[in-house]
Amino acid sequence: MGKTRLEAFSDGVIAIIITIMVLELKVPHGNDWSALQPAIPVFISYVLSYVYIGIYWNNHHHMLHTVERVNGNILWANLHLLFWLSVVPFVTSWMGENHFAALPTALYGFVLLMSGTAYKILQICIISSHGGKNSLLAKAVEHDWKGNTSLALYAAAIALAFWFEWLADLFYVLVAIMWLTPDPRIERVLDE
Amino acid sequence: MGKTRLEAFSDGVIAIIITIMVLELKVPHGNDWSALQPAIPVFISYVLSYVYIGIYWNNHHHMLHTVERVNGNILWANLHLLFWLSVVPFVTSWMGENHFAALPTALYGFVLLMSGTAYKILQICIISSHGGKNSLLAKAVEHDWKGNTSLALYAAAIALAFWFEWLADLFYVLVAIMWLTPDPRIERVLDE
Amino acid sequence: MGKTRLEAFSDGVIAIIITIMVLELKVPHGNDWSALQPAIPVFISYVLSYVYIGIYWNNHHHMLHTVERVNGNILWANLHLLFWLSVVPFVTSWMGENHFAALPTALYGFVLLMSGTAYKILQICIISSHGGKNSLLAKAVEHDWKGNTSLALYAAAIALAFWFEWLADLFYVLVAIMWLTPDPRIERVLDE
Amino acid sequence: MGKTRLEAFSDGVIAIIITIMVLELKVPHGNDWSALQPAIPVFISYVLSYVYIGIYWNNHHHMLHTVERVNGNILWANLHLLFWLSVVPFVTSWMGENHFAALPTALYGFVLLMSGTAYKILQICIISSHGGKNSLLAKAVEHDWKGNTSLALYAAAIALAFWFEWLADLFYVLVAIMWLTPDPRIERVLDE
Repeated sequence: MGKTRLEAFSDGVIAIIITIMVLELKVPHGNDWSALQPAIPVFISYVLSYVYIGIYWNNHHHMLHTVERVNGNILWANLHLLFWLSVVPFVTSWMGENHFAALPTALYGFVLLMSGTAYKILQICIISSHGGKNSLLAKAVEHDWKGNTSLALYAAAIALAFWFEWLADLFYVLVAIMWLTPDPRIERVLDE
Repeated sequence: MGKTRLEAFSDGVIAIIITIMVLELKVPHGNDWSALQPAIPVFISYVLSYVYIGIYWNNHHHMLHTVERVNGNILWANLHLLFWLSVVPFVTSWMGENHFAALPTALYGFVLLMSGTAYKILQICIISSHGGKNSLLAKAVEHDWKGNTSLALYAAAIALAFWFEWLADLFYVLVAIMWLTPDPRIERVLDE
Repeated sequence: MGKTRLEAFSDGVIAIIITIMVLELKVPHGNDWSALQPAIPVFISYVLSYVYIGIYWNNHHHMLHTVERVNGNILWANLHLLFWLSVVPFVTSWMGENHFAALPTALYGFVLLMSGTAYKILQICIISSHGGKNSLLAKAVEHDWKGNTSLALYAAAIALAFWFEWLADLFYVLVAIMWLTPDPRIERVLDE
Repeated sequence: MGKTRLEAFSDGVIAIIITIMVLELKVPHGNDWSALQPAIPVFISYVLSYVYIGIYWNNHHHMLHTVERVNGNILWANLHLLFWLSVVPFVTSWMGENHFAALPTALYGFVLLMSGTAYKILQICIISSHGGKNSLLAKAVEHDWKGNTSLALYAAAIALAFWFEWLADLFYVLVAIMWLTPDPRIERVLDE
């Protein structure tokens, strides 16, 4: 299977996920500020998730640059990643509508943790079918402190959500900022 | 008509179907475990259907590899397949929300049966316009025990749903597992 | 502007329209036959509209085969066509939920009439920028009895809906069947 | 990153936004004219937003014609633009359902203002990474009176919405008409 169709399909699914989230922004039934207010926390959680999905789209694209052949493992690892990303609108909305209550915030972190893990699994599948430790991708993500730190922060946020909910939110925002800053690893290795 | 646009259109429709299902996951109105519980069977049925749509996307792509020309028959056989796939979110949701009750489970099997049949019709259309029994695809799917077994299991599950509902669910899961294991037929024939 | 991106965008919009209609199939709240019954007329109207959108996708693709340059007129005529097609799910659902009552059936015909007219406008825009009467497309659709008959039948159905509603439905089905039978005009002219 | 995938992703998101708006057209519960009436203002606001999104798609495509390399800034400026466009269906629907009341009309203008600003930011990012003042795009949009006038009219409409609501609507329509008339700047510069 060519990687073009895998890219196109992933792009399609990610474009739908990122756009569908806005559907969860229920149109208020009044026409004044008080009617608009309940939409504000949902809007904030929507912005956060939009940034996360944007980061995934960006990184996913970079990672696929190093792919030459697609096999069954890569295909299903990719569908597995898309699955967890497609659950993001659900937890985004649940967290927003409940004003960042403990359980929804923890579940949001859980879905981020699963997405991050699915991304790592996809990374491993690509590396193992492209020459292992000598592959381009393996060199680019050799220590992967960013990926590992993110997973650790998600796990911490899940636990913290039940005690200091705002700290969990802070962790989610921090991870997003960490990834927003450019990550030159793959580009550097590709240039070499 | 070139097959590129047929592929792109099918990819688009399948990407939308697989993502739209998550919209059926209604956001709970409370913020504790008890509010989340009703979403669990819907989530399980969503996972099952996600795997099914993923399998169809994968196999559809493999099958189109053998296509050189697209005619009206292939086009409408393809739209017919996409139609039944687009009904999957509806029955998925009905089955999940009713905790795998008899009729919804049977209807779920019926839609899988129609999808499987539509796939077989598309296969026949492609074979008949690409050299019949000597075509690549005909050789690849010569006995097609997987396809036939699936249709038989769907039919059995529809009947069983009214007596031993869990057996119907088991059949759906078994068919999915059967297809998840790699199917080297088309790749092998293409290599030759 | 290249026609590739126009094709890709149109394909995307049409894929979304055809898939979104199924979202209108509300999941019943019971789990027996009586709960399923109200969904049946909606399902029937969904099938009809699915066939219509499929026909438009097919014909749109054929028509664009003859296009070499895209200008502002063609672009907006195309967006105008996509607009009316995107209203189809709304009238489909209204007609289905009201069991083919007079006004919804007439409005359904009105949207089909506007879609057909928009298609004709797009045809005129393409012809006028590709050599007028000598263009490929002009030769292919010289008399266009199919297009004209469809528009006449839609107009008749709108009026009939208020007196003999079933006759309006019959007209919609007849037009669909008329277009389902292969239309070799453009392919023939392209071959020459 | 190649610009092809950026174009394809943007096209996907814009196609979804423009189609999703129609989902906000709630199907009326009766089958006569009085049941249809509440849908009319929503329909009108939908038409207006459809034209706006169509204009953005058109201009976005023109602007990307001048792009040769995509960097992180362009990518996130593009995602930022898509974000504000994806909020359009929400404000469209809120404005329509409240019969063009003051606050929803002002918020509609605010989202248009943010979209226009995001478009300008994307323009600046592209120019600064393609040779600055000597770049193709910089020459094409040198004075950009259209872009600046639009932003000014949006800002005025936001304030006016609370005093003369119909004037705000008029401004939105005027800006749309202004952009509908062909803008030969980029094409002219590209030709040179």
